[in-house]
Amino acid sequence: MKVGIIGGSGYTGGELLRLLVNHPDAEISAVTSRTFKGKPISVVHPHLSKILDMHFEDISAGEVAKHSDIVFMAVPHKAAMEHVPELLAQGTKVVDLSADYRLDYDIYEAVYGVTHTDRGRKAAYGLPELHRAEIKRANLVANPGCYPTGAILAAAPLVKAGKASRIVFDSKTGISGAGMIPSEVTHYPNIAENIVPYQITKHRHLPEILQELTRLNKCKIHFTPHVIPAIRGILTTAHIFIKSKMSREEVVELYQKMYADETFVRILDGVPSLSAVRGSNFCDIGCFEVEGDRVIVISAIDNMVKGASGQATQNMNIMFGLDEKAGLWMPGVAP
Amino acid sequence: MKVGIIGGSGYTGGELLRLLVNHPDAEISAVTSRTFKGKPISVVHPHLSKILDMHFEDISAGEVAKHSDIVFMAVPHKAAMEHVPELLAQGTKVVDLSADYRLDYDIYEAVYGVTHTDRGRKAAYGLPELHRAEIKRANLVANPGCYPTGAILAAAPLVKAGKASRIVFDSKTGISGAGMIPSEVTHYPNIAENIVPYQITKHRHLPEILQELTRLNKCKIHFTPHVIPAIRGILTTAHIFIKSKMSREEVVELYQKMYADETFVRILDGVPSLSAVRGSNFCDIGCFEVEGDRVIVISAIDNMVKGASGQATQNMNIMFGLDEKAGLWMPGVAP
Amino acid sequence: MKVGIIGGSGYTGGELLRLLVNHPDAEISAVTSRTFKGKPISVVHPHLSKILDMHFEDISAGEVAKHSDIVFMAVPHKAAMEHVPELLAQGTKVVDLSADYRLDYDIYEAVYGVTHTDRGRKAAYGLPELHRAEIKRANLVANPGCYPTGAILAAAPLVKAGKASRIVFDSKTGISGAGMIPSEVTHYPNIAENIVPYQITKHRHLPEILQELTRLNKCKIHFTPHVIPAIRGILTTAHIFIKSKMSREEVVELYQKMYADETFVRILDGVPSLSAVRGSNFCDIGCFEVEGDRVIVISAIDNMVKGASGQATQNMNIMFGLDEKAGLWMPGVAP
Amino acid sequence: MKVGIIGGSGYTGGELLRLLVNHPDAEISAVTSRTFKGKPISVVHPHLSKILDMHFEDISAGEVAKHSDIVFMAVPHKAAMEHVPELLAQGTKVVDLSADYRLDYDIYEAVYGVTHTDRGRKAAYGLPELHRAEIKRANLVANPGCYPTGAILAAAPLVKAGKASRIVFDSKTGISGAGMIPSEVTHYPNIAENIVPYQITKHRHLPEILQELTRLNKCKIHFTPHVIPAIRGILTTAHIFIKSKMSREEVVELYQKMYADETFVRILDGVPSLSAVRGSNFCDIGCFEVEGDRVIVISAIDNMVKGASGQATQNMNIMFGLDEKAGLWMPGVAP
Repeated sequence: MKVGIIGGSGYTGGELLRLLVNHPDAEISAVTSRTFKGKPISVVHPHLSKILDMHFEDISAGEVAKHSDIVFMAVPHKAAMEHVPELLAQGTKVVDLSADYRLDYDIYEAVYGVTHTDRGRKAAYGLPELHRAEIKRANLVANPGCYPTGAILAAAPLVKAGKASRIVFDSKTGISGAGMIPSEVTHYPNIAENIVPYQITKHRHLPEILQELTRLNKCKIHFTPHVIPAIRGILTTAHIFIKSKMSREEVVELYQKMYADETFVRILDGVPSLSAVRGSNFCDIGCFEVEGDRVIVISAIDNMVKGASGQATQNMNIMFGLDEKAGLWMPGVAP
Repeated sequence: MKVGIIGGSGYTGGELLRLLVNHPDAEISAVTSRTFKGKPISVVHPHLSKILDMHFEDISAGEVAKHSDIVFMAVPHKAAMEHVPELLAQGTKVVDLSADYRLDYDIYEAVYGVTHTDRGRKAAYGLPELHRAEIKRANLVANPGCYPTGAILAAAPLVKAGKASRIVFDSKTGISGAGMIPSEVTHYPNIAENIVPYQITKHRHLPEILQELTRLNKCKIHFTPHVIPAIRGILTTAHIFIKSKMSREEVVELYQKMYADETFVRILDGVPSLSAVRGSNFCDIGCFEVEGDRVIVISAIDNMVKGASGQATQNMNIMFGLDEKAGLWMPGVAP
Repeated sequence: MKVGIIGGSGYTGGELLRLLVNHPDAEISAVTSRTFKGKPISVVHPHLSKILDMHFEDISAGEVAKHSDIVFMAVPHKAAMEHVPELLAQGTKVVDLSADYRLDYDIYEAVYGVTHTDRGRKAAYGLPELHRAEIKRANLVANPGCYPTGAILAAAPLVKAGKASRIVFDSKTGISGAGMIPSEVTHYPNIAENIVPYQITKHRHLPEILQELTRLNKCKIHFTPHVIPAIRGILTTAHIFIKSKMSREEVVELYQKMYADETFVRILDGVPSLSAVRGSNFCDIGCFEVEGDRVIVISAIDNMVKGASGQATQNMNIMFGLDEKAGLWMPGVAP
Repeated sequence: MKVGIIGGSGYTGGELLRLLVNHPDAEISAVTSRTFKGKPISVVHPHLSKILDMHFEDISAGEVAKHSDIVFMAVPHKAAMEHVPELLAQGTKVVDLSADYRLDYDIYEAVYGVTHTDRGRKAAYGLPELHRAEIKRANLVANPGCYPTGAILAAAPLVKAGKASRIVFDSKTGISGAGMIPSEVTHYPNIAENIVPYQITKHRHLPEILQELTRLNKCKIHFTPHVIPAIRGILTTAHIFIKSKMSREEVVELYQKMYADETFVRILDGVPSLSAVRGSNFCDIGCFEVEGDRVIVISAIDNMVKGASGQATQNMNIMFGLDEKAGLWMPGVAP
């Protein structure tokens, strides 16, 4: 299976490559970058040195499509929708890691403040635990945002069961989610020994979480993200208010049932830790403490893997009928 | 004014010394430690080297009292109540940094699992912003816990005004709160690049927060703490649910009014940062975003200063009619 | 190929398991731990949860040998030599990750302060880049220390060529090298925002570096290690004093020649970074600046992989005639 | 004493303000910033909020001089020399925190690649431990670089005594030395869990170290800096090669003698730690291990205090005949 990557010089591009070089069925056909055109990929991603001997190319999406069975869009939102139609027209499958196809188009335009130029296109929301069948049939998969992945998985069983009335997601992310470009927030003296709340009520991932959870059932959703001094990982503390009394056992049972056949979800007795999922595609879910009408569920993912490139690879595996674990069956890098 | 410290070898003891060596009215009379008896204080607290030329002593509380106008108890809970009666009997004032006199005695015994041997003793709860008059008159001040300081100050104005129906405190603390003794949770590979929720619904500071806020008004309180990879600081994200609609301006006004004359509370336009309060006695409060019936208020303190030894010093200043700023009027060490 | 691990509950044991679960030719036969006997391995190593479904056993080395073609000793020094004779007697091959068989026995006894109970046993020093042929023939391989791996590889070409007169190795290690047990040095407030020199002239790895480099050629060796606030990785700054003038090009050529066929050594144009090797078996070597008679060569490894369990796996591959890359051909987890 | 600051919006400007607000003899007269003209200082330095109620001004150096007895230049090199002549002409004293007056002018031009427009100006090199008398008489003091401060103090006694033949300074700095502007090297994912050697043999502070140490005596000097994941602090490991045998006691005696009357130098029995000097003006010096002809001396400073703004304040105190401790006599913020 030939795999192209459009926009390979950022963190998600690098992470796709880290995973794909060891994928048993994937052969990387092209990796594009305008900025680094002609340069060895290992100049930007030195961890790939000696393992991946390719150069960045500055070729059109159409050109990439010609040599690829599937293309990953690892470009910012807005840039993705410019190329997706052409890729699909050539019969290539697409996993889009940007936000362009995740939301209802009206909501997308309101949230991202841009006109969607490919409205009406049907895409599967690429959270396999909720939409596997749809992903399997899709030519275009909208890979979920990092926060939504951890938040939705942490709450879905209670929401689906109609138990949740309101949820406060208090999320804590590693800084790699901010990307490769240095900025105020990624400046070491600003984030080390600190924790930085931002986009307190208006983060763009809120409508995404809302859309997916309310597809399951009615529920009020709040979401406040924080950046922590960590490179990778998102820990989400979900304060879930329930409509009627439940025991911890009943809560746990809901989660175990819903995720019983899920390869990449691990239901824990204890509390999840970022170190156990670092570099891996797992979403660890645990805690499940009940305090009156509040249930606390905590999830941990690696924002670069299950929150981005790993999940994209998982979606590829599903779209092509491969073993879902292919290229992804590795433990976290702990400690 | 002569100041004694019982239990000077831990972090709060060291922090008391850091502050007191520059206090214009304080003279350190004795610093006790059983373990380090006879050793120079700078062996345990090398940052004090050359500034404080004293040795740890292993003398009785009574002996300390003889040479002290005020004594700080910087010992664990249970150890404090063993000495406080004797100190007070000798006419010495006491600021107790342990939990022994913070709570209603029945609640104390239930929460800390020990019999209180000095029940009935009256102590002022040493949060000057709520109890200044009482502190002024007190011979015994129970210095607040670190989490309660940040949480109570973040919520008091809305609670007092009868606006809050329920609050979820999602707190994030630096690791120095765990003390000087190495443990699983302070082990660098466990906490670096991580964030560790613990005592999810059962932290001992919950009853303290509850007691103080419900003194102001009825309100449901939830509290979930996390340890972050930082040495100092507590950032508390207070998700406050309100009974009736309020604008951001109305919220801010409540806070500005209540804290108008408070030296060590700073109301911010933006979001507080641990770096701005590091090493200082300030409690920065900000955010105040309103999203429907949820108001988000965020506070930042240094857990070692406003959350412990700085507040203890502030209480001493109040008890002795000194300028409240004495020895404490210094900016945070930023960056 | 059946693989046993004696002492599987520490960091190096966990790292062996992380690598072996994806090794195409390895089947884990037994993992011992006295402390965690009968417990699922994922209780201690939660990152292995769902991938490795085994329990710790408390069985004798002989019992392990019965079911294993090779056994990894992941126990402290002194404990290893107690079991190695029995394992070898049963025809099992052994890679010992402890220090017991690395040094000349007289030196070992002097440095480690214990009597060696298996003196005279012949072991290959498991640095494949220097001793591959010997490792291939060996039944017992002494896996190198973490510092020696980075230091020796950084200096070997210049030493072997007879160019180096004296070397100052100024090494900086992540804290995982200190192991899983909390201690003063691993206590977060002591190491975060700090760098801690220790065993300034007397670290036990100095004789190991000295032994291996002086096998190549005469040279004076100095070694001073520091702990940095990082979980994984060792960066070694080798200040190499040379006997006669050399250009940077001549230096680089020496390194390229010596390591031309080495799978896991990467010679860089620039300066190595811990992030490029994190979680991988690579040793990146670069810098090569020349300033008069000082040449600066810098190496970076992951102390847990090339500095311990990865190199042990590489040795296993060599001992069994497998592809040296088997189970190890993965990029660093960057960023 | 009225104090002006030219360039007050960066880290060294902020640190000057943090120290000066508590200086008993200093009154801040003006703080300039082109970028933040008219804005409250606490917008850029929120830790000063409520303590310093001033605004940035965009006024000429001449205007600042009119209202100041002393002016601190906290601007980049080249910008300082443009204003210093005018300030001095008005009779104001100047402490220049830039590099403009630190070096012999020929060397300055070669190293910094700019023409010096104020050549011939006499300035005292502001390291009080070496040049106190000269500083006392000076109108212009060139405040030393951060690395030179730690390196020179670590080596001066051995060099002055004619004992040192060659020194390898292997320095490790916190990232605040790189300033307030985000860049590749300050990007959290690049420096966290890492250590980054840079300017391996060509750092601009090398000629400064060389100039000052060779003023004391002949000696070969090498200097290689690294950035560590810390906000503040410089730890310098000085590998000092000596000409003839010395015992540890003889080494320590040299240091104790030379620094006997120095307020801000602390000679330690053990090894210095960044946490003991954090936020303080101390230079801790220790280790003193002797291994054949290598003596290891280790120094620790806060790069922002003794390495910049604290030393500048110390120089001001000396220039005005004040107590050298004024405004600076505070312990490090440990932990």
